Amino acid sequence: MEKLLDRLIEKNRYLTQFGQVANYIPALEKANPEDIGICLIDGKGKQYCSGAYHKKFSIQSISKVIALMVALMDNGEEGVFKRVGMEPTDEPFNSFYKLDLPQGEKPANPMINSGAIVTTSLIKGEGEEKVNRLIYILRKITSNHDITYNEEVFLSEKETGHKNRAIAYLLKNKGLLEGEVEEVLDAYFKQCSIEMDCRDLAKVGWFLANKGRILKSKEQVCSEEIITTILAIMTTCGMYNFSGEYAVRVGIPSKSGVAGGILAAAVNGMGIGVYGPALDQYGNSIAGYGILKDLSKELNLNIFY
Amino acid sequence: MEKLLDRLIEKNRYLTQFGQVANYIPALEKANPEDIGICLIDGKGKQYCSGAYHKKFSIQSISKVIALMVALMDNGEEGVFKRVGMEPTDEPFNSFYKLDLPQGEKPANPMINSGAIVTTSLIKGEGEEKVNRLIYILRKITSNHDITYNEEVFLSEKETGHKNRAIAYLLKNKGLLEGEVEEVLDAYFKQCSIEMDCRDLAKVGWFLANKGRILKSKEQVCSEEIITTILAIMTTCGMYNFSGEYAVRVGIPSKSGVAGGILAAAVNGMGIGVYGPALDQYGNSIAGYGILKDLSKELNLNIFY
Amino acid sequence: MEKLLDRLIEKNRYLTQFGQVANYIPALEKANPEDIGICLIDGKGKQYCSGAYHKKFSIQSISKVIALMVALMDNGEEGVFKRVGMEPTDEPFNSFYKLDLPQGEKPANPMINSGAIVTTSLIKGEGEEKVNRLIYILRKITSNHDITYNEEVFLSEKETGHKNRAIAYLLKNKGLLEGEVEEVLDAYFKQCSIEMDCRDLAKVGWFLANKGRILKSKEQVCSEEIITTILAIMTTCGMYNFSGEYAVRVGIPSKSGVAGGILAAAVNGMGIGVYGPALDQYGNSIAGYGILKDLSKELNLNIFY
Amino acid sequence: MEKLLDRLIEKNRYLTQFGQVANYIPALEKANPEDIGICLIDGKGKQYCSGAYHKKFSIQSISKVIALMVALMDNGEEGVFKRVGMEPTDEPFNSFYKLDLPQGEKPANPMINSGAIVTTSLIKGEGEEKVNRLIYILRKITSNHDITYNEEVFLSEKETGHKNRAIAYLLKNKGLLEGEVEEVLDAYFKQCSIEMDCRDLAKVGWFLANKGRILKSKEQVCSEEIITTILAIMTTCGMYNFSGEYAVRVGIPSKSGVAGGILAAAVNGMGIGVYGPALDQYGNSIAGYGILKDLSKELNLNIFY
Repeated sequence: MEKLLDRLIEKNRYLTQFGQVANYIPALEKANPEDIGICLIDGKGKQYCSGAYHKKFSIQSISKVIALMVALMDNGEEGVFKRVGMEPTDEPFNSFYKLDLPQGEKPANPMINSGAIVTTSLIKGEGEEKVNRLIYILRKITSNHDITYNEEVFLSEKETGHKNRAIAYLLKNKGLLEGEVEEVLDAYFKQCSIEMDCRDLAKVGWFLANKGRILKSKEQVCSEEIITTILAIMTTCGMYNFSGEYAVRVGIPSKSGVAGGILAAAVNGMGIGVYGPALDQYGNSIAGYGILKDLSKELNLNIFY
Repeated sequence: MEKLLDRLIEKNRYLTQFGQVANYIPALEKANPEDIGICLIDGKGKQYCSGAYHKKFSIQSISKVIALMVALMDNGEEGVFKRVGMEPTDEPFNSFYKLDLPQGEKPANPMINSGAIVTTSLIKGEGEEKVNRLIYILRKITSNHDITYNEEVFLSEKETGHKNRAIAYLLKNKGLLEGEVEEVLDAYFKQCSIEMDCRDLAKVGWFLANKGRILKSKEQVCSEEIITTILAIMTTCGMYNFSGEYAVRVGIPSKSGVAGGILAAAVNGMGIGVYGPALDQYGNSIAGYGILKDLSKELNLNIFY
Repeated sequence: MEKLLDRLIEKNRYLTQFGQVANYIPALEKANPEDIGICLIDGKGKQYCSGAYHKKFSIQSISKVIALMVALMDNGEEGVFKRVGMEPTDEPFNSFYKLDLPQGEKPANPMINSGAIVTTSLIKGEGEEKVNRLIYILRKITSNHDITYNEEVFLSEKETGHKNRAIAYLLKNKGLLEGEVEEVLDAYFKQCSIEMDCRDLAKVGWFLANKGRILKSKEQVCSEEIITTILAIMTTCGMYNFSGEYAVRVGIPSKSGVAGGILAAAVNGMGIGVYGPALDQYGNSIAGYGILKDLSKELNLNIFY
Repeated sequence: MEKLLDRLIEKNRYLTQFGQVANYIPALEKANPEDIGICLIDGKGKQYCSGAYHKKFSIQSISKVIALMVALMDNGEEGVFKRVGMEPTDEPFNSFYKLDLPQGEKPANPMINSGAIVTTSLIKGEGEEKVNRLIYILRKITSNHDITYNEEVFLSEKETGHKNRAIAYLLKNKGLLEGEVEEVLDAYFKQCSIEMDCRDLAKVGWFLANKGRILKSKEQVCSEEIITTILAIMTTCGMYNFSGEYAVRVGIPSKSGVAGGILAAAVNGMGIGVYGPALDQYGNSIAGYGILKDLSKELNLNIFY
């Protein structure tokens, strides 16, 4: 398996030159665009790694998956989905114009920024508590107690996040956001700034691929129903407005982040974490997508095959 | 199994009163809103039926699946997807305003009307040939040689289909449509008017759930790759702008039509056809959805579970 | 005065190199982009000409003004404005996406294509009659009995007018268009193909600037109320999505066409016709605008000054 | 003249029952929906009043006219119009979805909220200085040194102005807004909260109708060119997305505010101030519009007549 991973990394490395590191958050610009790493944990829990699998990066939009999970645990399906939909959209992740049209009732889904800000607002806890609860559950799932958010990335996002601020104030205006807007945004920017490596991501993938059970302890910390909801939403909405093509080409429930991470949960119980900060036009890791496409074929992981 | 189907029909029958028969095509208004029927063919080919499973109805948007298949067989992936995307959209099935925005390059996917009209235009053949090829392959898949289109429904759609006509002319204007617009529309309206019953639909479902093999002969008439593409697109786009929630609640690749049919292809090799002309606000059979939601739970068919 | 016109033509001639002849209708591409002409008729009826004032061109969108006038005479204000608004829009003249949004009740105004197609449909008369009535009134206003439409331009517009066809079918679908779509479109394409020169245009301008009186006979053929409505709509909507800036810079009720004509009706009773087929990005004659801007300053014609 | 004003007030009073006092800013809800008042100052400076002409109200969007004037005086046309357009729009005054579309370069015009926030940001001065400069010039124009902003209204707008906050942050994100967002918003909310009565408004109208000269001193405090620009923009954009119909029916450059004021500047040198807090669906004073429509006919003030 490790040879396969090595091979796929080498095969897809050339793609990094066609991608670009995210530049709208200054702290992300420092990443090395040529980095690629992967960690795969099979159904039995055996872990395989290759490339820059040990490099830490901020999880960015991948945090939306965990935030959705905690929001669902805190509020139930009805409590969450009355404020955010679960329909995929063909608009970019930071688009929010539809919310300003008369028919714009609520954000399309929790994987775009507007929906994710709603989800974060629904996590119980004041101030620092929201992000602490996300960190707590991530530490539990990964058994990695060093996981925390990167203060520099957080401050960079906070300082430049005017588009997210515009989204949050429109949500507030529409009665979709409880609490102080800046406090919710702080929680949101902090969750985006949580740092992990491919091994951590793979453990989260394994957790999702195994109905909410923790790799180390096998303890189930989330209901199967919530995991099903999350996997379906990852499939239809997880890769921004490339989710449809990704479902065709890869067919593994996944979620990407603009720092270059991809979290994938294969239905055969495999968890995968990929890293590659050079992004394509949709904001997905360009080499990460290439590797997952190949891996899906080699290991027959496409749920539609 | 038949008892289960009977039970689910009875359980969901009350839903029909909350739905409405499609009224924008005069010929569809004649349907009995209380009808419900189902046919399920298991992986081994055993067939179970219940309710109004023998009633014929026009397949409407379900034809988009077959048209996509034939277009892919005729043109290859590149030939098709340079003119239509494969991204789900949160817009209704007959929306096309995005095509008139500067960024509106091509229809979002082949399951909305604008995309489906492109797909139909890509089927090889002049005049009557396009629809005849669709009918031919449907007869082959179902071993039912009586399948044909309903002339009255066709004429009704042709007469009142001004919205589709607007879409087609805009596509023509954008260089996305080859051939005469009215000829393509005739083919499109005819394919929508093809009549089948739940048993036929279930056979098509079985065909898709078994990598393109025909139930009776086991002959493979379509590449596995195309079937994967279709199943993925059905999952992300098949139930109009309810596809996201449907993936969560049902999790079976499906396609609905406004005459009340739903075609479903479960990954365990099961094919399902459902009929119930009373529709919900999205244009999906309201009782059909209810039955499939229950069936998915009872038989564990949700691919995300 | 003629010296002034000569001077302004020379001063603005360089602008033609920054514009482009309309290319979406093949017949228009043949125009000489360097042509500029003007005719001005003062309040007392004295006529001054300069440049290519005698060249004939199709009036294109300028016909929308006359069509609106006849539609108002035929149906009254209520009959017209229940189907088309009188609000300016910041969208291009051939945009119609808003009509496909749930809030898209009717076209914004009669100076954009969607609104103008509605107006034309409201002109009384079957088949050729609609355009004949427009030609009849134009001949009367200008005392030029040679005015007619150019068959080649008409056929060119008819053949390539798929965008207008899309608009018309959407209007039909929304119940805003009476009659056969293709018949209305024929009338619309024919009215766009009516040919005039600057002298004819100036007479129409004089007619509008003098409360509906014909230059030669002083006969009043249209109510003052309708003329007021038309002048106001020309001011807020007449120069496509440049109408706002044009009101600031020129301040003369005007209407442009993509063949390069501009019709202007100054409130001091002056009528002006300008021709220059090189267009700016909005579809207005680039040199024509330059000349009118200068003329407005020289002769103090800006109604907001 | 005063009799005419009395008569028009009585004639239009019944309209107030079809309108509604603005309720989205709590402080405005306290207004008496039945109030109507008018003040008219003729070209020679003679003042006529009727009804509730002495009642003070916050000028709200009327302040956009003065803010535009000062911004133009501070930055020149180019400095202002590179950040905000001068095109009318058919969208409501608080709509901003187009700014989130790829083609959304800048706000359509300075009379909608998004454009007005840009204009306010361009007024020179830090903190309280911006609004103080507006108050200073309004005092000068009206010779009323009591003019100031209402603290309660300001705080109410500030507290509930999340939509404007969303707009401002999106403008910031697009690089269209200099300075601290909350500071600009404070200035904007304060300018909206400036209180005047019909007599003050009429003096501002007189000032605009007389090329920037102050009624009392005849001192010219603004260039004629800026006044022309403002009058044109008031005509095409001043009455929200009713500006087109208003130009037809009234034809006087005007600007309304949601507290019920209308500022009008007739081209014969007349200045008019109207008050009536019951609003129509566009946000314009319902009785105020009725009175101005009648007045325009009675006194022949329509510039398109």
